[in-house]
Amino acid sequence: MAAPLKILVWNEGVHELTNQPATMATMYPDGIHGAIAAALAQHHPEADISTATLADPEHGLSEDVLAGTSVLLWWGHSAHDQVADEVVERVHRHVLGGMGLVALHSAHFAKIFTRLLGTSCSLQWRNDGGRELVWTVKPSHPIAAGVDSPLVIPQQEMYGELFDIPEPDDLIFISSFAGGEVFRSGVTFTRGRGRIFYFSPGDQEYPVYHHRQVQLVLANALGWAAQPGLRHTVPEVGNPARRDFGK
Amino acid sequence: MAAPLKILVWNEGVHELTNQPATMATMYPDGIHGAIAAALAQHHPEADISTATLADPEHGLSEDVLAGTSVLLWWGHSAHDQVADEVVERVHRHVLGGMGLVALHSAHFAKIFTRLLGTSCSLQWRNDGGRELVWTVKPSHPIAAGVDSPLVIPQQEMYGELFDIPEPDDLIFISSFAGGEVFRSGVTFTRGRGRIFYFSPGDQEYPVYHHRQVQLVLANALGWAAQPGLRHTVPEVGNPARRDFGK
Amino acid sequence: MAAPLKILVWNEGVHELTNQPATMATMYPDGIHGAIAAALAQHHPEADISTATLADPEHGLSEDVLAGTSVLLWWGHSAHDQVADEVVERVHRHVLGGMGLVALHSAHFAKIFTRLLGTSCSLQWRNDGGRELVWTVKPSHPIAAGVDSPLVIPQQEMYGELFDIPEPDDLIFISSFAGGEVFRSGVTFTRGRGRIFYFSPGDQEYPVYHHRQVQLVLANALGWAAQPGLRHTVPEVGNPARRDFGK
Amino acid sequence: MAAPLKILVWNEGVHELTNQPATMATMYPDGIHGAIAAALAQHHPEADISTATLADPEHGLSEDVLAGTSVLLWWGHSAHDQVADEVVERVHRHVLGGMGLVALHSAHFAKIFTRLLGTSCSLQWRNDGGRELVWTVKPSHPIAAGVDSPLVIPQQEMYGELFDIPEPDDLIFISSFAGGEVFRSGVTFTRGRGRIFYFSPGDQEYPVYHHRQVQLVLANALGWAAQPGLRHTVPEVGNPARRDFGK
Repeated sequence: MAAPLKILVWNEGVHELTNQPATMATMYPDGIHGAIAAALAQHHPEADISTATLADPEHGLSEDVLAGTSVLLWWGHSAHDQVADEVVERVHRHVLGGMGLVALHSAHFAKIFTRLLGTSCSLQWRNDGGRELVWTVKPSHPIAAGVDSPLVIPQQEMYGELFDIPEPDDLIFISSFAGGEVFRSGVTFTRGRGRIFYFSPGDQEYPVYHHRQVQLVLANALGWAAQPGLRHTVPEVGNPARRDFGK
Repeated sequence: MAAPLKILVWNEGVHELTNQPATMATMYPDGIHGAIAAALAQHHPEADISTATLADPEHGLSEDVLAGTSVLLWWGHSAHDQVADEVVERVHRHVLGGMGLVALHSAHFAKIFTRLLGTSCSLQWRNDGGRELVWTVKPSHPIAAGVDSPLVIPQQEMYGELFDIPEPDDLIFISSFAGGEVFRSGVTFTRGRGRIFYFSPGDQEYPVYHHRQVQLVLANALGWAAQPGLRHTVPEVGNPARRDFGK
Repeated sequence: MAAPLKILVWNEGVHELTNQPATMATMYPDGIHGAIAAALAQHHPEADISTATLADPEHGLSEDVLAGTSVLLWWGHSAHDQVADEVVERVHRHVLGGMGLVALHSAHFAKIFTRLLGTSCSLQWRNDGGRELVWTVKPSHPIAAGVDSPLVIPQQEMYGELFDIPEPDDLIFISSFAGGEVFRSGVTFTRGRGRIFYFSPGDQEYPVYHHRQVQLVLANALGWAAQPGLRHTVPEVGNPARRDFGK
Repeated sequence: MAAPLKILVWNEGVHELTNQPATMATMYPDGIHGAIAAALAQHHPEADISTATLADPEHGLSEDVLAGTSVLLWWGHSAHDQVADEVVERVHRHVLGGMGLVALHSAHFAKIFTRLLGTSCSLQWRNDGGRELVWTVKPSHPIAAGVDSPLVIPQQEMYGELFDIPEPDDLIFISSFAGGEVFRSGVTFTRGRGRIFYFSPGDQEYPVYHHRQVQLVLANALGWAAQPGLRHTVPEVGNPARRDFGK
């Protein structure tokens, strides 16, 4: 009945190949994208889940691929500027048309994220492997369903305020860190017809995407951001004639 | 030109008289209300600042007093249920009509606060004197002007999420505590024509209102919540005739 | 798997019995509640849909009934003050605990609605049978799915701004009227764990609930407000011991 | 004490020179920018108000000019794409750093506006000179102070929903048009440290900026958007060492 849920997990895939291949091969033998895709498949066995990376032709984000995608997950960190502007504009158009976007961790600086939000998206950070606590502040939101409060991540990079984002539609999670910092770590936005979720846990140096509760958050986010069967049409300018609606 | 800023600092005044008179006499010889009023007077020398307590006739919140008040600060903790319902309805009416309300610390459970917000306003708490860090997340808001981020309070009662409030208009401050908890510690709401600010630091066991930065937050809040010269008129139901506005 | 969707359509039922029995018998032979319930059953054949009215014992809103209800629809107009305060507190508690509430038309003045929102909920009105146009302004919201923009209601009572409500979580619909007035006619709120939708079309003098598109809005609202399987627990105050979450 | 309020009224100035010079010379002999600047000077006699147009070097928007500007008003329509990208990035940076932006009418399609908001900002329009009614829905906002509800504009271009913008921080005005359309005509956003107000009335074919109430809205908007004395610093990424804040 409903169109099948088509999910695309995108990862720049640079840490796996170049930056830290040994570490990554141990922690994420199939890449960060592979680990996320496998986890999502357990929660959404009915979904059609694919992966793509920067190295793929058109970064694996062709018009055809995006047209059939309900939700795009985006992990990027060290190669934001290698993402072609043309592809960014294409993804932007699809999000405005209704494709969901789940932006993860360092994707706060991805071109597509700053393009959609319009701010610097800067933040404070420190990588000393302290623990992160993710507290739920909007329990009625579907993304929070079944998630522990706090969700305890033993080791993570610290991301702290000020996080320079527009006022989110929903503030679902707030994190605290071992150094006392706080961060709006789970926030939603609507842009055009598209639903966007940003979730900050997920540094490449720690096995965050193997954490069952983090996987649950991502799985919930898919269900929320997907609008299966929606054609991706950006709201368009119109010049309608005056109609007679009655008095 | 502008009407003078009239401020009323309300304190139930029970800890001072009954619960912890010795401690309070040392820390707040003029009561919590007295300390707050003195601090505000330094920031707003032009303002007319009064105090009132539960023990006053009509709790010091008569129709005449409220009609002339631009902003009411409210500190209460152990005697919420002793505040007369009639007075609560009166304050409610004036807030809807445009009187500002600054609710402090345990006032999250004040009748007037839960009446205005409609939720349980429950939260998690623990009084072990840990440090609180108050981080600014909306620096462009006038209440955050000049406030350190973090504002460090060496000892405070912990107030933690889930804080059961409606989505605030503005989330200005988020606190973290020594135990890793987080709390939306500075939030605004609009109800009717009135502006409301809740600020959670301020337990009676610690000298929080002597903290210069906390005083600055309260002084900023007054400037923001005040609408001097506004008549306190609750938006009313109307039954206007159809007008001819042209075509 | 999922608990069945239990829906309760509540109508004061006074116009049917007393105020305009002849008109109502023609337009709504099974009452407004009956018409709404029948329409919802077409959209949600899997749901368990009941009705209740003011005249029922405890207004049909006993603890047992509410405990099993996923979403309560509320239509009231001329008998708001006959709803027992005890029942209002009970419904309030269940909404904070996660029961959905869909408030219709004059229910803006229902005790449960003003109790949840904390404002006067006053508005401007005029009953001259002009046409109402309901425009979608948040097309990505599930309540707007498949709904015409504008949804044209040939004859309706005018409800106009200023509508004295708190800032809604989502503004989904804005109406205009033949006299040029505007109204935020479809708005959502979250209170506690509960989801609330207010929809203004629906005066008893016009066959609004027979309008297929109005029925679609209500059916969508049920799907959005329901959190089947959720236990209705109001967020509670807690006093947790300090835990060791690591460093 | 406070830094002087420096206001810059920017107009592309193309209709005045090329498109409709005769009409414009009659209606706006000093250009749209000149008319707006003169009106603002009456409300803010203390302010330093300048104008600039597309034809000026760097469009009159040099680094030096922007560094000293508290609020920039922007009117553009037929030459959005002639605004240099370099200048757009510069204005963007200053808005994120705290310069206010008041975007008028067709400026919904200005590069700086879509860059800040991240959406298409498309809308429905029809220029048949019908009347526009601007209704206040947030009376406690300073931009609404003293403004009639409705503010009646006898002739205006119709701008209708769907207006593809992110959820505004504040929805202050909703307009209706003779054809029954509605539009969120006065909305605010915060981006970085900057405050943004969009106000839709103002087509070049009608003398909208001579309307005393429209002038009042713009004057109010200046007062709200200005943060005099604020250095324009975009929130920056930081990498702070772990501090010892106590326990």
